[in-house]
Amino acid sequence: MPTVALYAGSFDPITNGHTDLVRRSLAFVDRVVVAVATNASKQPLFAVAERMELISAAMGGEPRVDVRQFGGLLVDFARAEGIRMVIRGLRAVSDFEYEYQMALMNRHLAPEVETVFMIPSLETTHVSSSLVREVARFGGDVSTLVHPDVAAALRRKYGNGG
Amino acid sequence: MPTVALYAGSFDPITNGHTDLVRRSLAFVDRVVVAVATNASKQPLFAVAERMELISAAMGGEPRVDVRQFGGLLVDFARAEGIRMVIRGLRAVSDFEYEYQMALMNRHLAPEVETVFMIPSLETTHVSSSLVREVARFGGDVSTLVHPDVAAALRRKYGNGG
Amino acid sequence: MPTVALYAGSFDPITNGHTDLVRRSLAFVDRVVVAVATNASKQPLFAVAERMELISAAMGGEPRVDVRQFGGLLVDFARAEGIRMVIRGLRAVSDFEYEYQMALMNRHLAPEVETVFMIPSLETTHVSSSLVREVARFGGDVSTLVHPDVAAALRRKYGNGG
Amino acid sequence: MPTVALYAGSFDPITNGHTDLVRRSLAFVDRVVVAVATNASKQPLFAVAERMELISAAMGGEPRVDVRQFGGLLVDFARAEGIRMVIRGLRAVSDFEYEYQMALMNRHLAPEVETVFMIPSLETTHVSSSLVREVARFGGDVSTLVHPDVAAALRRKYGNGG
Amino acid sequence: MPTVALYAGSFDPITNGHTDLVRRSLAFVDRVVVAVATNASKQPLFAVAERMELISAAMGGEPRVDVRQFGGLLVDFARAEGIRMVIRGLRAVSDFEYEYQMALMNRHLAPEVETVFMIPSLETTHVSSSLVREVARFGGDVSTLVHPDVAAALRRKYGNGG
Amino acid sequence: MPTVALYAGSFDPITNGHTDLVRRSLAFVDRVVVAVATNASKQPLFAVAERMELISAAMGGEPRVDVRQFGGLLVDFARAEGIRMVIRGLRAVSDFEYEYQMALMNRHLAPEVETVFMIPSLETTHVSSSLVREVARFGGDVSTLVHPDVAAALRRKYGNGG
Repeated sequence: MPTVALYAGSFDPITNGHTDLVRRSLAFVDRVVVAVATNASKQPLFAVAERMELISAAMGGEPRVDVRQFGGLLVDFARAEGIRMVIRGLRAVSDFEYEYQMALMNRHLAPEVETVFMIPSLETTHVSSSLVREVARFGGDVSTLVHPDVAAALRRKYGNGG
Repeated sequence: MPTVALYAGSFDPITNGHTDLVRRSLAFVDRVVVAVATNASKQPLFAVAERMELISAAMGGEPRVDVRQFGGLLVDFARAEGIRMVIRGLRAVSDFEYEYQMALMNRHLAPEVETVFMIPSLETTHVSSSLVREVARFGGDVSTLVHPDVAAALRRKYGNGG
Repeated sequence: MPTVALYAGSFDPITNGHTDLVRRSLAFVDRVVVAVATNASKQPLFAVAERMELISAAMGGEPRVDVRQFGGLLVDFARAEGIRMVIRGLRAVSDFEYEYQMALMNRHLAPEVETVFMIPSLETTHVSSSLVREVARFGGDVSTLVHPDVAAALRRKYGNGG
Repeated sequence: MPTVALYAGSFDPITNGHTDLVRRSLAFVDRVVVAVATNASKQPLFAVAERMELISAAMGGEPRVDVRQFGGLLVDFARAEGIRMVIRGLRAVSDFEYEYQMALMNRHLAPEVETVFMIPSLETTHVSSSLVREVARFGGDVSTLVHPDVAAALRRKYGNGG
Repeated sequence: MPTVALYAGSFDPITNGHTDLVRRSLAFVDRVVVAVATNASKQPLFAVAERMELISAAMGGEPRVDVRQFGGLLVDFARAEGIRMVIRGLRAVSDFEYEYQMALMNRHLAPEVETVFMIPSLETTHVSSSLVREVARFGGDVSTLVHPDVAAALRRKYGNGG
Repeated sequence: MPTVALYAGSFDPITNGHTDLVRRSLAFVDRVVVAVATNASKQPLFAVAERMELISAAMGGEPRVDVRQFGGLLVDFARAEGIRMVIRGLRAVSDFEYEYQMALMNRHLAPEVETVFMIPSLETTHVSSSLVREVARFGGDVSTLVHPDVAAALRRKYGNGG
């Protein structure tokens, strides 16, 4: 039976830190489902459909990656899909605290789903979707932080380029 | 003179982590005042009166617990009540940072009020009011995280159950 | 060539922790530019002009301090001003995490600008603009946390004092 | 090709926290190599052979676990065995800091070996080999912290029981 | 029944941080037992008897403080003395991590003994026994960090003064 | 008056993380004194004279760097040299905790000496003298972590290479 990992988040937008993590996990799982959470309370910059397109673009047609969306609880989605491994990136201690509490809650709700953590490449330590949006908003150069299609989409959103 | 401890918060709603902490403190103080802060800026899920009722229900009629509400500064309420001990739970490092700064500020404002920290039961490490609300909102099972009356109140609020 | 340091923030309002840091940096730089960031997304308590006036008052006419404002990215402002050193205060671990990521992003955007950290006086460990606002809002005494002009401005804003 | 994970450490002695982690990883890998590091500078309580026997006992004859020993660098052992995944447990922030630096160094030395982190069961949060030795040394009860064979071996070492 | 708190450690030597914590706890307990742990593995600077004398001197004859020594496990000593509250100081995150794990282990070994944490005075944030020894060893001034009798004892030990 | 910064440590041996930090500080100070602490309690791998030679080699004859040694307290050395700025690198939270306490103690002992922190290059996040020794000891490749002269010296010490 193939091993499938679930990588969920807002991906608003997907960054090089995210794609690095997906590629790393493909070294030990057969497929990765990248799933956009649709029920985040904050107002996103990109619509769900845009985010999914940008994920597909950033993953460059990798056949072992599926791009999906989900509402509700992560563990309910995992169960419905028959996925038993959730992957998460850890860049910093503050990441760790939040991730630790979420992983424990998810284990409480679905003991059969295991959360597994990886460290993204050092070059992406400072790359988060919110910082990328902030830099792009003021016309800063994000071309080494995100895929070219994402950079172009950010320029269109903020109207400061191309 | 009886020792009285003050345990303040939003309690939106009270969880098993909160009740665990109150019971632990009753081992070394005579009474605990559980006080709902009414001036939090965020929009609460439950009204102050509802939160107080749920606290009473969750504490199961323990005669040494008083449920109260307060506006303004915690230390002003403590002083008005003649209380000199504030209890707080510590679950994680990020808790600690915030609690540390608050405790120092409260000591600056009212040196005679001492903040005392305890570690809640391990089984409640992952239980916070906000995570409980999130799980309940999507129909997840919170029956082992909160008192049955709180679980029922959450179901009524979110309209996803009995 | 004189050494100039940039100290940027919301300063809503400036506290004794901020002024302590500026005075400490004047021991090893020739001038400090204190710059109010005008594009923070949150609704500030004080207008930009008020914040700049309070900074000037709190710095007590120190001739080696310039008070400025800026929009956009910090590193763009630094570059435009020809400043190559950014100073930041570190009080706690959670500070460190955020500052670390910001410093790395700024280095990515402008490698010639170095971020340098200092520890403010212990007496200001618990002093942040947001806590000062919270205390002042409920009529607490902030006279040992901020400059007298700032304390007076807070009383005027919240209408709870002379 | 089967997925093999490497779980290395001193295991002086193996605790329920260690066995919990191995069982969790068997959910998504085919085999786990548990490897005793023989070159730790500290004087161990148990000889390498004893530690390996206790690991075998604690794993209860699980056929998908191999118990091994190694000297030198972890990544050299992984390479010699053709293993590309190292698993580690994360219990606390201080764990994370050290693990983070080690994982980065190992990635530098062997980019093809990925370090993957998991959270052990909450009931084992407080269980470390050193704390277990400390408790056992003074005759404390470790029967719920380690396998019965390990508890017996500790009693023999410290001469305070059975 | 009087409330008694146990404050245990190496006290090699007692610092102003320790005495501050004892005085703070006397605000809500009737007596504090300050207990020197005699089985620390490291070679201490002061003998147990010396450490106990310096504690008595530093506490200035406070009648509600008992100075004791103990070997073995802290919880065994607490049980033998009928004490159900252990007090600890928290100065920093690294303190917290260690203290958290110890408190959980002690709760596991003796569920009826509660660990309670307090924050010492800001002026003692940088004061630890090991740093005090280091400063004193090289003739630095420790007179504001420890009791005069402790300062004198350090000078005698290191032969660099009086 | 030229600005001079003091950078002190064991440097056993100097790594690329250290040299990166010295070069960064030369952007805002006129000279850096790199000082080997001779009174560390642990048994060093390299003698003081060797460590000083390797520092000189690693700094490549930079004329604005002085290599020195000192015993006793750092602040006493700084005072004797008339230096008022100490520079330190921050790589991680655990670094921060220790550095914070040391900086506060040094401020207590010598208020006129300011400690200033910088973040070394990301590529050196995982590089510490102790990890470098560990890797070199088992024949691992350290050529991208230290200066070629240091790599050669390590090979000679451990007898595992040309």
